Amino acid sequence: MSSFSRGLNLDDGYFCRSPLPTRSKYWPLADRRCHARRNHSGRCSEFPFLNHLCSIAPKVADKIERDSIMTTGAAWKSDEAGPNRILRWVMLETDERLLQFGIDMAKLQPQVVAKLREKAADYDSCIRVAMWLTYLVYQMPDSPQPPAEVKTYLEDLFGPIRPDSTTCLVCLLPLSFNLFRAARRGKAAIETCHKEPRLHDPGNVGFAHRECNIAQGAKGLSDFYEWIEGILRRARPGLFR
Amino acid sequence: MSSFSRGLNLDDGYFCRSPLPTRSKYWPLADRRCHARRNHSGRCSEFPFLNHLCSIAPKVADKIERDSIMTTGAAWKSDEAGPNRILRWVMLETDERLLQFGIDMAKLQPQVVAKLREKAADYDSCIRVAMWLTYLVYQMPDSPQPPAEVKTYLEDLFGPIRPDSTTCLVCLLPLSFNLFRAARRGKAAIETCHKEPRLHDPGNVGFAHRECNIAQGAKGLSDFYEWIEGILRRARPGLFR
Repeated sequence: MSSFSRGLNLDDGYFCRSPLPTRSKYWPLADRRCHARRNHSGRCSEFPFLNHLCSIAPKVADKIERDSIMTTGAAWKSDEAGPNRILRWVMLETDERLLQFGIDMAKLQPQVVAKLREKAADYDSCIRVAMWLTYLVYQMPDSPQPPAEVKTYLEDLFGPIRPDSTTCLVCLLPLSFNLFRAARRGKAAIETCHKEPRLHDPGNVGFAHRECNIAQGAKGLSDFYEWIEGILRRARPGLFR
Repeated sequence: MSSFSRGLNLDDGYFCRSPLPTRSKYWPLADRRCHARRNHSGRCSEFPFLNHLCSIAPKVADKIERDSIMTTGAAWKSDEAGPNRILRWVMLETDERLLQFGIDMAKLQPQVVAKLREKAADYDSCIRVAMWLTYLVYQMPDSPQPPAEVKTYLEDLFGPIRPDSTTCLVCLLPLSFNLFRAARRGKAAIETCHKEPRLHDPGNVGFAHRECNIAQGAKGLSDFYEWIEGILRRARPGLFR
């Protein structure tokens, strides 16, 4: 039975979970932990499943780590926009508590607050998402093959790796690993994407073409499909039953 | 017979067309002209059909004028991005000629050049688009009614005004005039939109919901419909014949 079918409880004894030292000022809000297997040899590591990608595709590994654990607050930078990227679990705290960390939510524009709060997630969910995104990457067309250690680690969590099976979460077409390299002005052709905006957990998270993610906008995925169905029923009524 | 059915040739004797004084440094590239009716009384005016909107909804009038005659080069501001807004007919000139006006196209990023050149249009097309957008505005649900003079002017060009008939060019739902007021961070809820990106002329231009325009992206409208049809055929195959 995989951890996935057990709900992927990170405290179920499968992982080391030793607390890791951190220099983050947010350390009181969550212990960051080791996710190597219990009784592992070598040093503790928060994202051991990313080690291989780190060495062969460091930008992809960085992206998985960043998108898993950080919010994106606003597309612009200004005092009003507040912290552009912040740890997702920090955004679970009350305004009062955040003030103790120098974050004054009352000073931010309401839509920025909404966007930040929407992306809040607890630490374990963030780690689960990082694991899941790594698993998806190794199933992309043109993806590198994981070394045996990483393969076993991920398959124990989520089941057998099926090569070339990862699709864009929105348009459902195969999503080539090579698209990670296609970036314009720092904007990658592949983005991390949520089926429902508020849920940061495997099953709700995946990758999407940038244009698909942009088209989906703030909508949940089923609302998006309903929306484009409405458009198409007006623009191309003959297509439908 | 309306001017529209005659192809809306602005030199056909219907309009005054007296050259107007301008302080623009681009004056050698196109004469700006009066589009009041021939033999009009009062002062010459380039956009006399906008006079009423100017007084009751100046931001809407500004938007029509701006979107009709100016390009949008890039969403960001930097030396590399070049002029963010420039007269569309200036972008018809050769790189060599533009250099004489202080615009060094060779210094711009290729995608910025492409975007600027794509939005090039001659002066008369820009004026026709301004007339057309004004006509569309007066047919929006919740739109103010045009005074008799403006109504006659526009109906002579494009045919009878049908109240509440203006829809979003993309999703085809009615587009309420009140949405012009709904702006967030300076981004209006209604945007000017092109069916095919390269054609700046009535018939190809209209208004769209901001989210619809964003979803359409750089695609032509029929490519967009084909794209969302593909998505929906994969996501909701049961909907189709």
